[in-house]
Amino acid sequence: MARSRGERAVVGVDLGGTSIYAVVIDARDGRVLGAAKRKTEAQKGADAVAERVSGAVEQAIAGSQLKRKAIRAIGVGVPGPVDPQAGVVVRCPNLGPSWDSYPLVRELGGRLDLPVTLDNDVNVGAVGEHTYGAGKGTQDMLAIFVGTGIGGGLILGGQLYTGVRYSAGEVGHMVIADGGPLCGCGEAGHAEALASRTAIERDIRAAMAAGRESIVSRLLEETGRDIMTASILGDAYDAGDEVTVSAIHRAQYYLGLLVSACVNLLDPEMIVLGGGLLERMGDAYLEPVRRTAQQHYINKTEVDRVAIVRASLGDQAGAIGAAVLALQRLKR
Amino acid sequence: MARSRGERAVVGVDLGGTSIYAVVIDARDGRVLGAAKRKTEAQKGADAVAERVSGAVEQAIAGSQLKRKAIRAIGVGVPGPVDPQAGVVVRCPNLGPSWDSYPLVRELGGRLDLPVTLDNDVNVGAVGEHTYGAGKGTQDMLAIFVGTGIGGGLILGGQLYTGVRYSAGEVGHMVIADGGPLCGCGEAGHAEALASRTAIERDIRAAMAAGRESIVSRLLEETGRDIMTASILGDAYDAGDEVTVSAIHRAQYYLGLLVSACVNLLDPEMIVLGGGLLERMGDAYLEPVRRTAQQHYINKTEVDRVAIVRASLGDQAGAIGAAVLALQRLKR
Repeated sequence: MARSRGERAVVGVDLGGTSIYAVVIDARDGRVLGAAKRKTEAQKGADAVAERVSGAVEQAIAGSQLKRKAIRAIGVGVPGPVDPQAGVVVRCPNLGPSWDSYPLVRELGGRLDLPVTLDNDVNVGAVGEHTYGAGKGTQDMLAIFVGTGIGGGLILGGQLYTGVRYSAGEVGHMVIADGGPLCGCGEAGHAEALASRTAIERDIRAAMAAGRESIVSRLLEETGRDIMTASILGDAYDAGDEVTVSAIHRAQYYLGLLVSACVNLLDPEMIVLGGGLLERMGDAYLEPVRRTAQQHYINKTEVDRVAIVRASLGDQAGAIGAAVLALQRLKR
Repeated sequence: MARSRGERAVVGVDLGGTSIYAVVIDARDGRVLGAAKRKTEAQKGADAVAERVSGAVEQAIAGSQLKRKAIRAIGVGVPGPVDPQAGVVVRCPNLGPSWDSYPLVRELGGRLDLPVTLDNDVNVGAVGEHTYGAGKGTQDMLAIFVGTGIGGGLILGGQLYTGVRYSAGEVGHMVIADGGPLCGCGEAGHAEALASRTAIERDIRAAMAAGRESIVSRLLEETGRDIMTASILGDAYDAGDEVTVSAIHRAQYYLGLLVSACVNLLDPEMIVLGGGLLERMGDAYLEPVRRTAQQHYINKTEVDRVAIVRASLGDQAGAIGAAVLALQRLKR
């Protein structure tokens, strides 16, 4: 198939709770040709945010120095469930109620006069890691992103697998410890309630409330943060803070159980683990997860044929993946 | 594609711990044209069993009244992990150590002079249910069979999905209750240790050992069985035996958790539940499972788009599925 010149670039947007990140990538090799970042200012409502997304896209295109007609499509990843077929955001708890059933594809398409595609942030992150990151060259992989929550995106046969209701990959809500702590979704024992950064923070606060000493309280004070960021947790871990070390070990153990459950069901080529803690702590975070996971594999032969690796695109995975997905859907 | 006359029939074999079941099916519609059953007599070793499989196949072909040249291929499902590419059984704990690395494809191919394909019993069962049973017409489904253990077979994009090490679908070893009872595989908290017939039996025996009355002890005596079959458990449940009712409710709850974990990961069109208990108890078994599962879905919209249904081919799913798989692999 001859590739026309016009196909050479595509825009991807990662729309997050605090910032909007837009990239222009080369459609042939994923090289980032331009980028722009803005604050989301979610409190202003969906229309205002759509306007800011539009501005970030224009700025990224300007930065790429490409002519506008070289841009083929725009992909957007949002932090919540979507209906990609209808081009509608179902809801975005982090962004507010004005996003319930918000027709983002129509809104952006009207503003930017380009085809727009939509998916959730972890799905586009998985596509990014699969196409240009850690999962390059695999056919079947699962990306798991650990942050405030735990989300996943599934690539099967080289394509994003979305499921019959567009809700495949919700690994954070797989039950791994019946009777365990309550999840944000209202049910108990889900992976997100045990292995997310939020779960680690909850455990550390509980230990401190019970009178245990931890340097985390000093680190929070010094940095002026009110949540325990990956950076704070990493620093406390590196300093050997006992409360933090044990909370992180617990979370690693549960993440390992989650990985094992996914591997026993899917036996994929690769599990890609991403998110702030993995980025901050690197293989020190990965190794115990891998050990616990492999211990629970039913097939204990050739365990390393299921590669468990760290994501490699960092913050850019979502925006790059959104761009790739837009191009894939355009070609269909 | 014109279909030659020679393609019209294919043989499937379900090789179980106690019996061998062979069917000849019409390649166009799955109609069973001939069948034969033999005892496995596993104690005589792999070569002797292969000989008996061969005999059952010849008998099924004879029963079909087809000419031998109308048979295109043979598929076999075995109760253990296999390497379909190499045509080798990895091991079969139920059949004995002579099956470790046993080259069944070569052995049967030599005896029967036909192409032979191999997979594990739950994978062929899933293929059977997908092609001619409850899952007919779906693209993405998961079959879960509950018996002595819990096994599963995954159909994605209309094809059996085997995984990178041929061990996809091992849902019985997904951890759902960290710290729970020990599984046969040596690890704790797996679904098989909580929701299999074996788990129900263990719970009932524990209750009886603790002095609780149960009619199961009388039923075991009357039937002369030393294990609690689905029929015995179903009778005790129907009689309102408290110990049995509570053990079965517990197993249903855990099966529901397992289903929810699979749905949150895959969001498939259908979950097919099979095995003796589901056959014996019908919707009385299915309903509580569905209820628990749906409660743990993260996506609570359109919950019934993920159909949770009972298997419909009963004992024949494995043999029919093995035949279908043989035909599919022949065509590749």
